[in-house]
Amino acid sequence: MTIEFPPVEPPNEDARREAVARHGVLTKPAGSLGKLEELGVWVAACQGVCPPRPFTRPRVIVFAGDHGVAQHGVSAYPSEVTGQMVANFLAGGAAVNVLATVAGATVRVVDVSVDSDTSVGDSKVRRGSGSIDREDALTRAEAEQAIELGRKLVDDEVDGGADVLIAGDMGIGNTTPSAVLIAALTGSEPVAVVGRGTGVDDRGWMRKTAAIRDALRRARPVISDPVQLLATSSGADIAAMAGFLAQAAVRRTPVILDGVVVGAAAIVAEELAPGAREWWVAGHKSAEPAHALALNHLSLEPLLDFDLRLGEGSGAVAAFPLVAMATKVLAEMATFDGAGVSGPA
Amino acid sequence: MTIEFPPVEPPNEDARREAVARHGVLTKPAGSLGKLEELGVWVAACQGVCPPRPFTRPRVIVFAGDHGVAQHGVSAYPSEVTGQMVANFLAGGAAVNVLATVAGATVRVVDVSVDSDTSVGDSKVRRGSGSIDREDALTRAEAEQAIELGRKLVDDEVDGGADVLIAGDMGIGNTTPSAVLIAALTGSEPVAVVGRGTGVDDRGWMRKTAAIRDALRRARPVISDPVQLLATSSGADIAAMAGFLAQAAVRRTPVILDGVVVGAAAIVAEELAPGAREWWVAGHKSAEPAHALALNHLSLEPLLDFDLRLGEGSGAVAAFPLVAMATKVLAEMATFDGAGVSGPA
Repeated sequence: MTIEFPPVEPPNEDARREAVARHGVLTKPAGSLGKLEELGVWVAACQGVCPPRPFTRPRVIVFAGDHGVAQHGVSAYPSEVTGQMVANFLAGGAAVNVLATVAGATVRVVDVSVDSDTSVGDSKVRRGSGSIDREDALTRAEAEQAIELGRKLVDDEVDGGADVLIAGDMGIGNTTPSAVLIAALTGSEPVAVVGRGTGVDDRGWMRKTAAIRDALRRARPVISDPVQLLATSSGADIAAMAGFLAQAAVRRTPVILDGVVVGAAAIVAEELAPGAREWWVAGHKSAEPAHALALNHLSLEPLLDFDLRLGEGSGAVAAFPLVAMATKVLAEMATFDGAGVSGPA
Repeated sequence: MTIEFPPVEPPNEDARREAVARHGVLTKPAGSLGKLEELGVWVAACQGVCPPRPFTRPRVIVFAGDHGVAQHGVSAYPSEVTGQMVANFLAGGAAVNVLATVAGATVRVVDVSVDSDTSVGDSKVRRGSGSIDREDALTRAEAEQAIELGRKLVDDEVDGGADVLIAGDMGIGNTTPSAVLIAALTGSEPVAVVGRGTGVDDRGWMRKTAAIRDALRRARPVISDPVQLLATSSGADIAAMAGFLAQAAVRRTPVILDGVVVGAAAIVAEELAPGAREWWVAGHKSAEPAHALALNHLSLEPLLDFDLRLGEGSGAVAAFPLVAMATKVLAEMATFDGAGVSGPA
């Protein structure tokens, strides 16, 4: 198997122009809805139609996986939490489930590489990924299998009617490979990308920084080969997410990005499928320091700045109502002519 | 009639403490939902119960009124737009209507001082308010009548089941009195508070700055008397909003503040009913420069920074889903014990 994505087409320029023009005839001063106007224009361009259609099936896919590096004291929580949280997602008790009820989105959790048995499907690529500070996360074949899984998830969802996608992460230890990927592709030092993750203490922070340093040494030789970079330095969950984000662009489906783990997958996805980033909007800026580097690398501006650091897709889901609003403004507001409202004097 | 508000009680400290503690046992690292956690704690304190109840009846009240100063070239739009927009709100075609459908809120528009006939009720205090650069906006009796109107609107809404309130503004020329009120109460210069409003051009901007300067000269002698300040330098719509914001606090009902016009009403409301600000959260930071001064004066941090400058309550409605999410997180997320998820190692 060789992974190759077809060229990504940009969002539709005609629809973008029409949306910009439409903002000038709706009953409000042009530009007065600020970033909501820009967001609506982006949605119209992604859909290739103006006015854009209000979203009917926002879908959140949570990619669950364990990371060998978590055995080396880089996280505040034990690895068993990953599998326990999968059960919690299924029961509807996790943060992303609750946020999704407000956003009108539905949540699906996929066990990509949890290191225990879960009751979710048959997508598991392997039990846990390797400890990237000392070994490869995955074989190249496993990396390709994971990317292919992410791709297939998009196809399933889009064919099933999903019109906007959110990827979320669940995996104890997953901010370590995320920091490594971001450091590798942005040329940053370990100390610039390391964060507290779920809330590691000072000694854990030092161990995490050292693990990032060691993993980064292993990552640097392969940064020009995104599939190998995922094999060497990510995890099956993150590799699947990268495939998912790239394929969403191929399928012309807008994505709202979440925090640092999705951000790490996104910068690799942009390498796999250049131009994919035009199909993504950044839901928020995480409290994790590496996230800002990833967003900057992708030239994406976050919608929210809420000091979130949970993952699960939570920040993207929190931002979704703003995207829905931006879309509906173009779709449903009255025009000056239609409402009999005078324009500027 | 003499306007006097009873002392404002602070939100409930016990519920606040319980909510902080509850955030520590929900299935997420403590603090990982950042500002969403703080927001939820505030809602619990306002409701006096933890977990807080998800909101069932968010209500937006749009206060419509004309301003004499608009006759002197300070706005990009003619005054007739105010009355036309009232019809647009009733028809559901304005931005706030569309945003409210996503937020699950309902919108009511009140003609406080529109300078034309509208089909809205019998709340009109007068047709237009005086041109504050050269005359008082209102008589003292009119100011008191307007404040009383705002107060009664809160009582009606809260008695009708509203559990969170948003005030919005509609009135060509209304950023001029707003800038004057904010300059007067924060001790700022005209040039620091003047903004483009609906999009006035450079010559209009100069006229607006001069009008603010002249109005500020009339405002300064009365800044220690909030009712007289409203009579001298606001408008009936803004005075009604000030009464509304103060009374919401008296009725222990949380409010999401919108932009610069509501912000101006809010700083006067805090003078009318000290402590009222603890019942408010700032929905967003407007593109109007005076707004940041008002928020800073009230020690409120905005949830969104979207360069909005429309008014109508639009920015507060845009932020409402975040408040709803913050509330539901505390109300509906599983606990570590309940979900069988391990805590920190």
